[in-house]
Amino acid sequence: MELKKCIVLSDSFKGTLSSREICRITRSVAAELIPRCEFLALPVADGGEGTVDCFLDGCGGKAVSLSVTGPFPGEEKAATYALLPDGTAVIECASSAGLPLVEGRKDPCRTTTHGVGQQMRHAAENGAKRIILGLGGSATNDGGCGAAAALGVRFYNGDGQEFIPVGGTLQDICRIDVSAAKELLKNCPVTVMCDIDNPLYGPQGAAHIFAPQKGADAETVQRLDEGLRHLDRVMQESLGFGAADLPGAGAAGGFGAGAAVFFGAELRSGIETVLDQLRFEELLTGCDLVVTGEGRLDRQSLHGKVVAGVAKRAKAKGVPVVALVGSVGDESDAVYKMGVSAVFSINRRAQDFHRARQYTAANYRRSFANLIRLLRAMRK
Amino acid sequence: MELKKCIVLSDSFKGTLSSREICRITRSVAAELIPRCEFLALPVADGGEGTVDCFLDGCGGKAVSLSVTGPFPGEEKAATYALLPDGTAVIECASSAGLPLVEGRKDPCRTTTHGVGQQMRHAAENGAKRIILGLGGSATNDGGCGAAAALGVRFYNGDGQEFIPVGGTLQDICRIDVSAAKELLKNCPVTVMCDIDNPLYGPQGAAHIFAPQKGADAETVQRLDEGLRHLDRVMQESLGFGAADLPGAGAAGGFGAGAAVFFGAELRSGIETVLDQLRFEELLTGCDLVVTGEGRLDRQSLHGKVVAGVAKRAKAKGVPVVALVGSVGDESDAVYKMGVSAVFSINRRAQDFHRARQYTAANYRRSFANLIRLLRAMRK
Repeated sequence: MELKKCIVLSDSFKGTLSSREICRITRSVAAELIPRCEFLALPVADGGEGTVDCFLDGCGGKAVSLSVTGPFPGEEKAATYALLPDGTAVIECASSAGLPLVEGRKDPCRTTTHGVGQQMRHAAENGAKRIILGLGGSATNDGGCGAAAALGVRFYNGDGQEFIPVGGTLQDICRIDVSAAKELLKNCPVTVMCDIDNPLYGPQGAAHIFAPQKGADAETVQRLDEGLRHLDRVMQESLGFGAADLPGAGAAGGFGAGAAVFFGAELRSGIETVLDQLRFEELLTGCDLVVTGEGRLDRQSLHGKVVAGVAKRAKAKGVPVVALVGSVGDESDAVYKMGVSAVFSINRRAQDFHRARQYTAANYRRSFANLIRLLRAMRK
Repeated sequence: MELKKCIVLSDSFKGTLSSREICRITRSVAAELIPRCEFLALPVADGGEGTVDCFLDGCGGKAVSLSVTGPFPGEEKAATYALLPDGTAVIECASSAGLPLVEGRKDPCRTTTHGVGQQMRHAAENGAKRIILGLGGSATNDGGCGAAAALGVRFYNGDGQEFIPVGGTLQDICRIDVSAAKELLKNCPVTVMCDIDNPLYGPQGAAHIFAPQKGADAETVQRLDEGLRHLDRVMQESLGFGAADLPGAGAAGGFGAGAAVFFGAELRSGIETVLDQLRFEELLTGCDLVVTGEGRLDRQSLHGKVVAGVAKRAKAKGVPVVALVGSVGDESDAVYKMGVSAVFSINRRAQDFHRARQYTAANYRRSFANLIRLLRAMRK
């Protein structure tokens, strides 16, 4: 059969193959095997490092670089966000407050999201119609207060003095005033990309689960957790509501909750945000085949992950979906009910992962090529 | 797309999945997923044990059992051959001279193919129009002399006395007379299924390569090799020609050469014999998809093996061919040029063979099911 239109939209294979590499591989195979097919290979951002580039790849638009506060107050850092053709600005936390930027000097009591807020402010002041904020990979635990301050939110201490809270000074906040930020963002809604469900504080909260990898010892974790708990209390007192139990509140050191409370942001899964932005339903028109995938397809994939998100929408449009994956975990009917037509593994030999991972890119290429070869060979 | 007709014709996955099991698995998947498709799953015989059953499965016909000489002279053994609807008799060496029959008492100097010849004689005398002879898995090294004797070939020793040579007495043959056998088989041509290329004698010959697994020590191998060399010399003297260098001459302890010289048999690869008998080209009419495969697809597969044989004929008829294999070895364009449209491995996880082999049947089932699911989901 002649494939007229084919879309590839695959998650990365964690640790072995990025979503953008999958795009490059599939484009090259398609150019060779089905040169007349309208072929779209779109990288999937997950909100972490690379999110800005993914959206630029997938949607076009321009990169906007400016100098902002780095991961520590007082430092300057060049950071880039994307301004997409429809006026959406895509900003990633990792670009000015990311973990790789503090390698060798991790300190979640001192790091700040201030630079992220400066990017948001720049976007809002320059006419962005909407902001997509990727929270992955942050080095911070400031509840988003640094970013909020950059957008005009005012934090006061016990002496009534304004200050910009960091992880170690959340306890000093006595009052919050969001009015200026509200005004700034009133025509620029914020969507947060967030694939974790953790609450703001407590045993599953930001500090206990994520602060250790940001450099916190047990005592510091406790202090940070108490800071976030205090922040929530002041939010409720000053603004009338908190967001401590919102799924994702604990993302990026509490930035999830901060974004919800300070900016009225909506927290969405990464893939839903990407599919909305791509206008995926419109892309599906006339499409013969969607190829998606991830490193390992299992029960988790059925909840909010890339394969599930892609399959659900393709199914609604009646477009066949192939999941090309590293490994097939549970193989239940739920995968098919979700809208996946067929699942193939890229493993071409019986090899354990330790050996097979060396061949991930080659195996992916060959498996994808064989999928296309098969369909091309079928008679109508 | 709606699959109207699909044929499965796969080699076994050596040691893990038989060709007949593949038939059972695919039939059950097809009944569930594509109940309206005309579905043919045909087992592939390789000339060894199970060849008779394979042909009965694939072609229909009746099983003919009779009592014949077993692997040692003087023993009786019930053995079964197939009489197919078109008058072809299918006889396997393994049924009366097979290796499992001599377990614990291997002795290639004494074993005989006499019972095989008795089956051939029975078939010829009862109107068989043709004989297909499967040589795999024999316990013998008699150059087919035992079978030949049963069909009327006469072997004389130095004293002019008639005898039935076995591996250990090949050296005693001084003269051969084939006239009676020729008369018996004149309307019943013999085709030998043979997938090895070994010559009758020498370093790559029957004795050196195969006699050790039949129980021969180094000295015996030497003696058997000299016997086969002597047999060839007498054939040339008595009959005017030998077949020592014919590819496959060394099959079944020299039965390949014996069949060629005594019966005028044609040596063909197993898969070509099977495809001819199935009238595969006719089956391909209206067929949307052929699924073939083997345990490991590699360069060897390009020469005379199942995947190559199936793909070549399907390609000539323009029918797409999927190779569903245990492991993909070399992945060269030669596979596609041969007529294979696409190659998929059944491995669903990154596991080494030691672990994966436990799941061969389940992995095959799932991979085949996903192949069918994919094609079923494609729009026309």
